[in-house]
Amino acid sequence: MPRTSSTRTPGSAVTLQQVATAAGVSLATASRVLHGSGGRRVAEALAERVTAAAAELRYVAHAPAQSLARSRSTVVGVLVHDIADPYFAAIAAGAMGVAREHDLMVLVANTFRDPALERDYLARLRAQRARAVLLAGSAFVGEPFAEEVAAFADSGGRVAAIGGHGTGIDTVEPDHHGGGRLIAEHLVALGHREIGVITGPAGLATVAQRLAGFTSVVARPYVAAADFTREGGRAAALELLRAHPRLTAIFALNDLMAAGALAALRELGRPVPEQVSVAGFDDLPVATDLTPGLTTVRLALSDIGAQAMRLLLDDEPGGRTVPAAAQLVVRESTARAAGVH
Amino acid sequence: MPRTSSTRTPGSAVTLQQVATAAGVSLATASRVLHGSGGRRVAEALAERVTAAAAELRYVAHAPAQSLARSRSTVVGVLVHDIADPYFAAIAAGAMGVAREHDLMVLVANTFRDPALERDYLARLRAQRARAVLLAGSAFVGEPFAEEVAAFADSGGRVAAIGGHGTGIDTVEPDHHGGGRLIAEHLVALGHREIGVITGPAGLATVAQRLAGFTSVVARPYVAAADFTREGGRAAALELLRAHPRLTAIFALNDLMAAGALAALRELGRPVPEQVSVAGFDDLPVATDLTPGLTTVRLALSDIGAQAMRLLLDDEPGGRTVPAAAQLVVRESTARAAGVH
Repeated sequence: MPRTSSTRTPGSAVTLQQVATAAGVSLATASRVLHGSGGRRVAEALAERVTAAAAELRYVAHAPAQSLARSRSTVVGVLVHDIADPYFAAIAAGAMGVAREHDLMVLVANTFRDPALERDYLARLRAQRARAVLLAGSAFVGEPFAEEVAAFADSGGRVAAIGGHGTGIDTVEPDHHGGGRLIAEHLVALGHREIGVITGPAGLATVAQRLAGFTSVVARPYVAAADFTREGGRAAALELLRAHPRLTAIFALNDLMAAGALAALRELGRPVPEQVSVAGFDDLPVATDLTPGLTTVRLALSDIGAQAMRLLLDDEPGGRTVPAAAQLVVRESTARAAGVH
Repeated sequence: MPRTSSTRTPGSAVTLQQVATAAGVSLATASRVLHGSGGRRVAEALAERVTAAAAELRYVAHAPAQSLARSRSTVVGVLVHDIADPYFAAIAAGAMGVAREHDLMVLVANTFRDPALERDYLARLRAQRARAVLLAGSAFVGEPFAEEVAAFADSGGRVAAIGGHGTGIDTVEPDHHGGGRLIAEHLVALGHREIGVITGPAGLATVAQRLAGFTSVVARPYVAAADFTREGGRAAALELLRAHPRLTAIFALNDLMAAGALAALRELGRPVPEQVSVAGFDDLPVATDLTPGLTTVRLALSDIGAQAMRLLLDDEPGGRTVPAAAQLVVRESTARAAGVH
């Protein structure tokens, strides 16, 4: 027999407010504990009181979360660093497809990798009572973002992220580290020892993770910084090849920069992969159309976007992490290092 | 000496309402005449009364338009058909760069080429008092859209478009027709007579214009329909080559589909351009990285987006049309037709 509580209205669902009242905490705190909304920590003793009250009242997270959602707009915000980067375009497209199935409208905001602008957009989406927001861009290393996220969640909105953005947020976590490691292992197995790496914008967690995965195998690559664009990759490749003429391989931290590296090697008349191997990251559609076809790491970007949107919309308690595997895709742009047989 | 009018408060700017009152018209009508806002026609006699009143009162369009703008949010909406298409990503990026210089926030909505969804987004942006909206996607042939645009403009928002979307709207007009003609002239000069065309989504003005430009030179190409994606282009090219094995050239109405056509020809072992020439449209960055390099039509997409955003923000009267030239870019994918010397 189900137990009933004096605070429960017979025949109606228990509300989150009733749980909060029973636990003697604020609605926001109850929401953080039971829906995982918001980035702030809840003290363990408080959290236990909330979960005990929820159990006592037979609180079902689903119904009130839905009713909360119904009171909001049908807009979901998606924050990206650079919509002109096909990486984000593919993620956004995957998220939009799922949103459309749910008759939700998606508004995409471009943050230009500016944390201040990212906070502004989040505040604006909160003011417009957006139902949910997807943080699609990589977090900034050491950049505190939790307060704005908590404010959004406290107002009743859902938050999900691609890549870690703090505790309590539903997250799809692409294996950037594992992908970097896969490329390093592949190049080392081919006999490469003198390897250049073209990195991405400083301070992005994605960049740090891909590089850390690589250097977990190849401790000391030559490094040139670029900006995730084709032109940046071309310039960085020229710089690397000038400074370190004995390089036998270049790993660019995304495919666009790898396309630029291939262009640089064409200009220099250095055949790929006979003299220099090139690898990228992301497996954008263009990777297969490059000459030679690009060895890279596949992230299922559209699926990642779709999965993140599903996490936003399923009204389950938040704070979940869904891993997204990285897969090595070997094409023609990598081969045995020159002189290695 | 400046004339003053009895309806003018000394020392303060003349308002649009004062002009409307003096002319005996509604504020919306005065706005349509003086700011070019909205898609509805204003009868000539009414328009003359408004311009006469504005002259009499020494009305300066700039100040009140600005004050109107100040009462609105700092959000500008950009409606695109498919953000995963680099064509739109490049336009959006150009528009966003200008918006950022003006401290405006851009929200991009993806309409999936669905006119109903496009109207929904426009209504939502109006409800949120977005300052302006850029219709970046091609209009649908014969699809009436003017009412929603007028409603947005009547509420005080600015509207601009890329490609014709109706009278009274500031427009950047890429020369799709001229670009289609340039490719046709180029292929005919190379001796091609049996030419296949891969078209894009039915009903889009852009598709109709590019095709009309081409058929103004080559009256009867073989035609296969596709959807502006690489995969669609690949399938359509296979279909064309199976049905018409004597084709010596394929013109795809965008570069993504041309990349798919190149992939199809690689699969079939038919060398490009020795057996079949291929041309695209847009000159996306990828065009130069394809093998062989793609002959195409350059539209300065980022500039087009930037220019459209400037039209939205300059508070000048609307209804302007700024042409954007199409330029033939000849690379290695086109050559003399086989058998022609």
